[in-house]
Amino acid sequence: MAAASSDTRAAMERSVRERVPPLLTDLYQFTMAYAYWRTGRHQEPAVFELFFRDNPFGGGFSLFAGLHDCLLFLRTFRFTDEDVEFLRSVLPPATDPAFFQFLRGLDCSGVTLRSVPEGSVVFARVPLMEVSGPLAVVQLLETSLLCLVNYASLVCSNAGRFRLAAGPRRKLLEMGLRRAQGPDGGLTASRYTHVGGFDLTSNVQAGFLYGIPVAGTMAHSYVTSFSSLEEVRPQTLVARNGDPDPVDVISLTKGWLRRVCELLGGEPGKISEGELAAFLSYAIAYPQNFLPVIDSYSVGRSGLLNFCAVALALCELDYRPVGVRLDSGDLCRQSVDVRRVFRLCSEHFSVSAFDSLIIVGTNNITEQSMVELNKKENEIDVVGVGTHLVTCTRQPSLGCVYKLVEVRGRPRMKISEDPEKSTVPGRKAVYRLLDAEGHPFLDLVCLAVESPPEAGVSLSCYPLMCDDSRLSVIPAQVTCLRQEVFTKGRVTHPLSSAAETRVKVQTSLQTLHPRHKRLQEPDSYGVALSEELHHLLTEIRKGSSNNSSFLLAN
Amino acid sequence: MAAASSDTRAAMERSVRERVPPLLTDLYQFTMAYAYWRTGRHQEPAVFELFFRDNPFGGGFSLFAGLHDCLLFLRTFRFTDEDVEFLRSVLPPATDPAFFQFLRGLDCSGVTLRSVPEGSVVFARVPLMEVSGPLAVVQLLETSLLCLVNYASLVCSNAGRFRLAAGPRRKLLEMGLRRAQGPDGGLTASRYTHVGGFDLTSNVQAGFLYGIPVAGTMAHSYVTSFSSLEEVRPQTLVARNGDPDPVDVISLTKGWLRRVCELLGGEPGKISEGELAAFLSYAIAYPQNFLPVIDSYSVGRSGLLNFCAVALALCELDYRPVGVRLDSGDLCRQSVDVRRVFRLCSEHFSVSAFDSLIIVGTNNITEQSMVELNKKENEIDVVGVGTHLVTCTRQPSLGCVYKLVEVRGRPRMKISEDPEKSTVPGRKAVYRLLDAEGHPFLDLVCLAVESPPEAGVSLSCYPLMCDDSRLSVIPAQVTCLRQEVFTKGRVTHPLSSAAETRVKVQTSLQTLHPRHKRLQEPDSYGVALSEELHHLLTEIRKGSSNNSSFLLAN
Repeated sequence: MAAASSDTRAAMERSVRERVPPLLTDLYQFTMAYAYWRTGRHQEPAVFELFFRDNPFGGGFSLFAGLHDCLLFLRTFRFTDEDVEFLRSVLPPATDPAFFQFLRGLDCSGVTLRSVPEGSVVFARVPLMEVSGPLAVVQLLETSLLCLVNYASLVCSNAGRFRLAAGPRRKLLEMGLRRAQGPDGGLTASRYTHVGGFDLTSNVQAGFLYGIPVAGTMAHSYVTSFSSLEEVRPQTLVARNGDPDPVDVISLTKGWLRRVCELLGGEPGKISEGELAAFLSYAIAYPQNFLPVIDSYSVGRSGLLNFCAVALALCELDYRPVGVRLDSGDLCRQSVDVRRVFRLCSEHFSVSAFDSLIIVGTNNITEQSMVELNKKENEIDVVGVGTHLVTCTRQPSLGCVYKLVEVRGRPRMKISEDPEKSTVPGRKAVYRLLDAEGHPFLDLVCLAVESPPEAGVSLSCYPLMCDDSRLSVIPAQVTCLRQEVFTKGRVTHPLSSAAETRVKVQTSLQTLHPRHKRLQEPDSYGVALSEELHHLLTEIRKGSSNNSSFLLAN
Repeated sequence: MAAASSDTRAAMERSVRERVPPLLTDLYQFTMAYAYWRTGRHQEPAVFELFFRDNPFGGGFSLFAGLHDCLLFLRTFRFTDEDVEFLRSVLPPATDPAFFQFLRGLDCSGVTLRSVPEGSVVFARVPLMEVSGPLAVVQLLETSLLCLVNYASLVCSNAGRFRLAAGPRRKLLEMGLRRAQGPDGGLTASRYTHVGGFDLTSNVQAGFLYGIPVAGTMAHSYVTSFSSLEEVRPQTLVARNGDPDPVDVISLTKGWLRRVCELLGGEPGKISEGELAAFLSYAIAYPQNFLPVIDSYSVGRSGLLNFCAVALALCELDYRPVGVRLDSGDLCRQSVDVRRVFRLCSEHFSVSAFDSLIIVGTNNITEQSMVELNKKENEIDVVGVGTHLVTCTRQPSLGCVYKLVEVRGRPRMKISEDPEKSTVPGRKAVYRLLDAEGHPFLDLVCLAVESPPEAGVSLSCYPLMCDDSRLSVIPAQVTCLRQEVFTKGRVTHPLSSAAETRVKVQTSLQTLHPRHKRLQEPDSYGVALSEELHHLLTEIRKGSSNNSSFLLAN
């Protein structure tokens, strides 16, 4: 399984630049940038934070993804002459022409990004990214960063939940390309579901770009395109290890089909000849990769019998058939029936290859049906998931936001009448506190200037969204959650490959206590503000309610 | 509002080629193509149909979109050496090297596409596209065509429903970029929601590529970035038509704010100075485009008062303020309050500009809240919709499928144990039958070889999914639903622009009877098979149940 090798990184950078040009943003970013520029505030140091307000899918956690693309985006952020000309045509005529000169010279050389590592387990309301730099520039980055993190994290989290539902051993295949939000949505889905715990993808381009193992054999259309054994060409196959003379594989298979029918009580009159022809042609083309879809007509009356006959013929010629795919009906029950037939054939015909045949199930799988599948008796080795994985049916958006928290060293906040929409002001540090068993139990959001919490030392904090209830905790370990990954225009932390981030997801999930990982009604994980930050918040709120004699002062 | 001009078409073609490379497909398309090639069947003429099984969102219709991109995709479909090398690494080692030569030479010069025009109202189970050509090639096109039609049609249909819910006059603004499935998902959403009936987008790149009018002014972060009037620079503005001497606009606004507070009973102590500073800076930068978001602190106690003061100052200097945006809380109630204040100011201060101020509402709008908004008293002129529009929360996938219906002139079908998943065999023509009022009432699917139905002549047909209940109808008019748009590798029908397709959507929707357009529990629209097609279907079903003595024949 080779990924595009040497030039991959450069190609990905180009691809991000093409997919996320600096015009792929909301118009108001430019009108605001202009107003800042006009006021002379565009160079003021500012800090934005990116976070989401609720864990998705009613769960207790999320997985953070999209950082890699954000870094490539920041590194290549620059306006072309053509971009600027277009902006000239859409911004109000009052716009000073010098502003366009300013835009033409912009890049991210003044921008610094602190971020949670990609692939980490994260929680609602914890600031995941901190973007600092000149006010006008960091404002302009908003929409693109949200766009790159939002779906990547959502679909990665969804994949993580499917993985938890499926258990660690079952293989998971992503096959959602045709149901995604267009071509790039499909590519993003393939990449981040792999990161979130899927093993394989059907998407060839995702294999090409990201080195994800690709899988797939045949669709129903292949099966229904055949109607008779006369269409099978060539009709012979050379045995794998042995006689160089071609064997008439049609006669061989017909012989096996009779024996299979006798063994299993199959009715020859109900067996589809077209299906047998399709299976045979495929097996002749790929004798070592025979894994047909067996429900185009009837699994029990046709597909399974045809499969066994062809697979037995292959075994006789020393090839190793791979397995079958079921794509409709009750997958669990059918897989049990199919496995029973495999065992019967193995014993009756003494073909040990039938003991290791795999059964692939693909039929509109949801998280819930994956949970049920895992509880019920079944023999499914590989599950393919499409629509519900890539579209995140249950909650198709994570709702990430990007909020201003500091300008010119002064904390800023939005004090909304809706407390859910208020923000936490100031530049921060985030620590993850672990208990004696190594499980994280609290994310502590502090002011950046505070000294970090210490292991074994009691501290007081204020759980978020609980107003003034103070909590005392003693962490057994403390880790700093975010790292500086982009400093003044340069990527300062190695970019992780999809494979590396995929490992990070599993190690991060492993440390999380099962009570937070429960798919339904998990215990909620603690997120709290430090005493100092809580104090600042209270002061600003107080200040805002009696802030101004400005109106009367002049 | 200028779109990227002369080179747009070439750029779009390039962009489709980059976004939809021929590797962006499922692996099984290649393994099947190989097996066809190996069997010598790859050049056999084959026909596939693209359709969906259920109208989305519980509705009675869908809108067909994505054709334009499909045509560009077909026109540019070709494998590079690099593509082929990658395929060599992922296909089974048994693959004959000559197959890769074959792939390298492939294009769509043998492919013909008949399609419903883009922007048409369409219905479940009607074959929308017919793709014919060499078996291996039309098989390889499956995933890409599905990917291009599925989301485009879904989000276009969603936009069409929002338009119906909003009524014809209210302006609709799409602003979902940050919540879409990555960058390209966002771009696709902007394009096809415009086609479906939205007027404006926040997405600048969509304006650039497709000429969609873009809109936007400021976010909360702009407002909260200001804390005092000292940050306002310059503090003067020159009147629009008149005295060239700059006016101290801060003093002017403060004076207006006092008068506004007197008129409206505002408490100066509750007014945010930072918000006033933000509004003033913006108004000084864009005095003819003043439309601030007024709920960063409190609409009634701060935002509205600050807006009125700045807007009155602008009016005094002969500028024309545009309006306000509300982004939280009960939009209807607030809009009524805001309008009342505008009228009061207009009368009290004799400023007629206040009579034409617009109110923009944006707050997590769903189709349901749009319906309610349309029923309740409100004064909202423009509604912005993001998440629920672009993610199609209620049903995030249309579930288009691509099914083989004919090979070498012989009809093919999948006879599933699940009747929902069975297909209708044979090459077809589709006619739309209209009643005397010009409303379509039935889509009739015939065999291609049949003579078309005639206006005023009674015909018998079999409604789909109703088995054997025969129906007689007399159409007042008959139109042929599909056109040949791509013939043997060439686009043979003019490509429609987004604007043209947008018009088509509205004219197509207008002919549809209101009973089918109801958003909830619509009357279902008729789709039926001709007698000949129904006869063929019955024959094939019968044949399949007693098809084969093949097993015993040899």
